[in-house]
Parts: sequence; structure tokens; C-alpha cells
Amino acid sequence: LRGSGPKRYLGVDIGGTKVIAGVGDADCRLESRVLRKTRFDSGGEVALRNVLAAAQEAVSAASAAKIEAIGISCGGPLDPERGRILRTPNLTGWDGLPVVSIFEKEFSAKAYLDNDANVAALGEAVRGAGRGKKSFAYFTVSTGIGGGFVTQGELFRGSTGNASEFGHQTILPDGPMCGCGNRGCLEALASGKSIARRAKELLRSGNTPSQSLMLDLVSGEIDSLTAKDVAKAARAGDRIAQSVWEEAAGHLGLGVANIINILNPERVIIGGGVAKAGLLLFGPVRRVAAQRALPDLARSVDIVRAGLRDDSGVVGAVRLAVLKSSGG
Amino acid sequence: LRGSGPKRYLGVDIGGTKVIAGVGDADCRLESRVLRKTRFDSGGEVALRNVLAAAQEAVSAASAAKIEAIGISCGGPLDPERGRILRTPNLTGWDGLPVVSIFEKEFSAKAYLDNDANVAALGEAVRGAGRGKKSFAYFTVSTGIGGGFVTQGELFRGSTGNASEFGHQTILPDGPMCGCGNRGCLEALASGKSIARRAKELLRSGNTPSQSLMLDLVSGEIDSLTAKDVAKAARAGDRIAQSVWEEAAGHLGLGVANIINILNPERVIIGGGVAKAGLLLFGPVRRVAAQRALPDLARSVDIVRAGLRDDSGVVGAVRLAVLKSSGG
Repeated sequence: LRGSGPKRYLGVDIGGTKVIAGVGDADCRLESRVLRKTRFDSGGEVALRNVLAAAQEAVSAASAAKIEAIGISCGGPLDPERGRILRTPNLTGWDGLPVVSIFEKEFSAKAYLDNDANVAALGEAVRGAGRGKKSFAYFTVSTGIGGGFVTQGELFRGSTGNASEFGHQTILPDGPMCGCGNRGCLEALASGKSIARRAKELLRSGNTPSQSLMLDLVSGEIDSLTAKDVAKAARAGDRIAQSVWEEAAGHLGLGVANIINILNPERVIIGGGVAKAGLLLFGPVRRVAAQRALPDLARSVDIVRAGLRDDSGVVGAVRLAVLKSSGG
Repeated sequence: LRGSGPKRYLGVDIGGTKVIAGVGDADCRLESRVLRKTRFDSGGEVALRNVLAAAQEAVSAASAAKIEAIGISCGGPLDPERGRILRTPNLTGWDGLPVVSIFEKEFSAKAYLDNDANVAALGEAVRGAGRGKKSFAYFTVSTGIGGGFVTQGELFRGSTGNASEFGHQTILPDGPMCGCGNRGCLEALASGKSIARRAKELLRSGNTPSQSLMLDLVSGEIDSLTAKDVAKAARAGDRIAQSVWEEAAGHLGLGVANIINILNPERVIIGGGVAKAGLLLFGPVRRVAAQRALPDLARSVDIVRAGLRDDSGVVGAVRLAVLKSSGG
């Protein structure tokens, strides 16, 4: 009989460009998984319809009629207590949206909200590269840079629930402005957005050769250049792209070294779109982190890619639902 | 009857220039307190005699004949498991010294060793500025810069016991060399040693006026200049001293902001010799930390001086003895 089996949980990982929804069991094994474009460029209502449709589809494809609880992951800032989105840059038109109560009505189950980096860290803890580790620090490197720290199997949240803002450590006091209002944050130096910005600056400055491969990749439309294009050009031997990439990855390595010295994790896990560059990223990150972290600490940690790849968030959202609905 | 009363614990805080020993009860209230110069300049054996004499005196002055357990605090690196000093820079001649077994024989009680910043944080947690706080980050700023993080009443130690190296976060990638082998660590920019070094550099460079007050304070012997002299001269209006001090305190504020963003503590506590400068230090530290930390996090934290002043270490050493001997 549908609905009489083991408990099922809905996880929804909402991003600026796509949403991934999935239904999993109490061990966070996914039974269904649906990916859709969110289309925030068509407005907040369209995006909300797409998000709910993806969640409905994931529920329909799963074996249980009844959802026990719902976990929702979004980029911050959020208000997890009140279940609302705040001024999140990439979720245009969702300012103040009571996403938790919308989901609760739609699926007749209790819903819980947390920020994307925390949720992805939960996913890596339960079914990814963090399994069995005493502690690990999770970096998500995509448009921005977020962090999550799991120790003794639990997310470390800090005194007001805002800990692990790894992307907002200052690592270059007079560096570029960051979206947070500070200068020289790691996010302003090594995020996907910063990598693209730096490459565009160099392409527009007079001092660089006009035949960069990056220009070919975007058919001359410098504005549309992304970190992915920079990675592709760097791999193909483009010197400007290589220098931009090396510099950004080096900054990330420095930020990772700081986290190693402060948190002494058994492992550092890096996820998010920029981690898809693989060794192009991990090579310099590992080298710089080993140079800069204290030797004893550097020896006792490894730096690896997120085990669940694109699914750290949706699995983590299922985990959030499991934990919260059981009082965790 | 002596020895039949409540339990008594010996705490010993061993530094490069002085040792403070004390006997306290299970609530870490000190019943005796003895301060002596260690005299490492006269060799490791002399220093060990002074340390043991201070401890004996503290025990004699206390009401209990029997010591339940002993806590020992030293600058790192140490081997807490084997109870040995390692290559600690300021404890000349103690390389490899089995300080734990020496104390255990001398006082017929079990002894426990931990690094000075961790121990001082324990002291602040139990009887200092950390009492009743959900979490706090402790910075000790003296010759070097150490850190300790207490959350839910317990010291956070990390996966291999080496967490909270706040002084070895890189905050200026191309900055001055640090004793650890890295460049631009907070310790290389804002410790007492770094403040003195920077002031000496400026006094020796041709570009500065020859009539700095700092020269008067050390009777022209630039080599003997300390951070305390720099603070005194800055307070008296000396421009070079003020610029050196402002720069160092600003770096410390940046390092504090990073810790706020990463650990989200309810309080930041600063102790150690440099904290004696009071507002001259705390003014710029608070200003820069508020500018650089994320607004939500900056609002929910305060930055204060260690409540136990010079006694964070000895009280923390008593606490270490209490915790460890009761299986904590």
C-alpha cells in the first residue's frame, strides 16, 4: 500500500539558475531526483512555479504518497527561524518570500530552511566525502563562496547560527570590494564571479594580447565570459586565463590554509561549480595550502572534491528534513 | 585536619620570563598564588628549579597537604600525550623535557599538560570573561599570538588537538616572514615581538626623525625596545610609535573579524601582555573588526579584555587539572 511503507523525505535545493528536488529515505538515499531551470529571469512567480513543479514531480516519482518532512536549501541571507528568504542576490523577486509555509501548505508536511553551504555540508556528511570523518570543512565555490563545518557528525552553527562564513575571511586587506561591503574577502578573489571579473578586466585593459582564446570562446562578447570559459582557455594554454586561474586558486588555497589552522579538520571538501575544474583548481589549492598551513596541521588533512557532485545540496536537504523532524 | 578537607589542585603557568603557580579548589578559586622569574637565561636547569620552587611554595601556602591533580601550561609546540616539551622557542634548554613526569614524581599526583592559549581560555571560561557565554574565542597576544575556542563550556580541540591557531592565519599574503615558515601570519604583524621589530626597523631607517620618544625610553639602545615601550611612546604622542601601533592593532582587528566570521562566537576575549595597552589596542581592534566582519555577526559579538588579567593561565591550569582528573 502506498503511504504505509518506510518514511519518505522531500529535499529541495534552490539555486539561481536551477532547482534540484528529490525524495529520499531516512538514510538519505534518493528514490527520485528532478532537475529544472528556475528561470528567475522571468520573475519570482515563474521561478516559484518551477520550483514547486520540480518538487511535485519528485514526489510523484517516489514510492510514498505521504511526505514526512521537507528540507529546503537556498543561498543566504535567510531567516531560518521564520522560514523566509531575505535579500538573496540570485533569487530575484523572492525578497521576504515565506518559502517554508508555501511548501508546508503544498505538501502538508513540516518544512525546514537552511543556507546552501550548511545543507550541502550535511549532504557530504551523510553520503559524500565527509562520511566517517571526525570533522570536515566544506567550501562551496560557485558564484560566491560559502562554508560549512561538521564536527562529530553535527553541523557547527555558532552562537547565533551564522558560523562558517569561509568566503568572508579577509585575505588581502586592500583587495577588491566584496558584495558584503568589505575589501579583499576570499569571495572577492576566488569565486566564479571574481574569476570572470578579473579575466574581463585583463581582456579590456590595453596591456594584454588581443588574441586571447577567451575572446574566441565567447565570440568576442566579453560581458558573457564565465569562470568556466576561463578554465577552458587555461587548460588550452591561454596565458592570461592561466594567470587569472592560478591567482584565484592560490587565494583559495590560502583561505583553505587559514581554515585548517583554525578548525584543524580531518578533511577539507570543495564543492560548487568552480570545483568542476578538477585538478586545475585542486593542484594550486593543495600546493598553497600545504605551504601556508602549519606543518603538523597540513600533514593531518586532505583536500578533496565533494563526493556527491551536484547532489550535495538535495541530499543535504533530505538530511535536514530527517534531522529536524526527529528533533535534531 | 590537613588533607582531609575538600580536594585541592595545583596549577602551574610556565612562561619564558615568569612562572605563576597556584593551588585552587574544584571551582578553581585560588587559595595560594606564587610568582617567580623563571630565568631561562641562566639555563634550563635553573629555570626548572625556579618553576618547581614556585609550585612547592604554592602548595605549602595552601590548606591541603595532598594535591589531587596538577595542570601545567606552557607555550607550544608540546606533546600533551607524552607530557613533554618540544622545541618551544622561549623555554631554552627544555627541549624534550618530560615536564609531566617530573611534576608527578615531585608532588605524587597525576599531571596534565596543555598549551598556554588553550589553558588560558579554560581559565577565562570558568572564572573570567567567558563565564556564561555560549561560546567565545580567546586570543593571547604577547611575544606570539595564540588562540583558544570554547563552545558549550568545552575547549574545541579539532581532529588532532591542534585547532585555534588564530595567530597563524595569513592576513597579508606577501607580508613579513613568520617564525612558522609562512609569510604574513597575524603573529608576524601584530604580536609584541612584531610590534617591536617594526618600530626598530623604522627607527633604523633613514626616513624617520631621529628624535623619537622611543629612543629616549630605551636610552638609545634600539635593540632593547619592546612593544610596551612602543605603547608608552604612542600614548605620549610619538608619531612613529602611533603609526606602528595603529597598524598592528588594525591587523589584529582584521584577524579578529575573520574569527568572528568563521566561529560566530558570542564574545572575543583578548589577553596576554599586549592587551595591557587597554584602549590603545581595543579601540582600533573594535573599529576594524566592526568594519570587516559581516554586519549580522559583528552585531552579535563583543570584544573584551581577559577578565583574569595575568591569572588566566594559572586558573586555567587548575581547571585543566580538575577536568582531566575527573575524566574530562
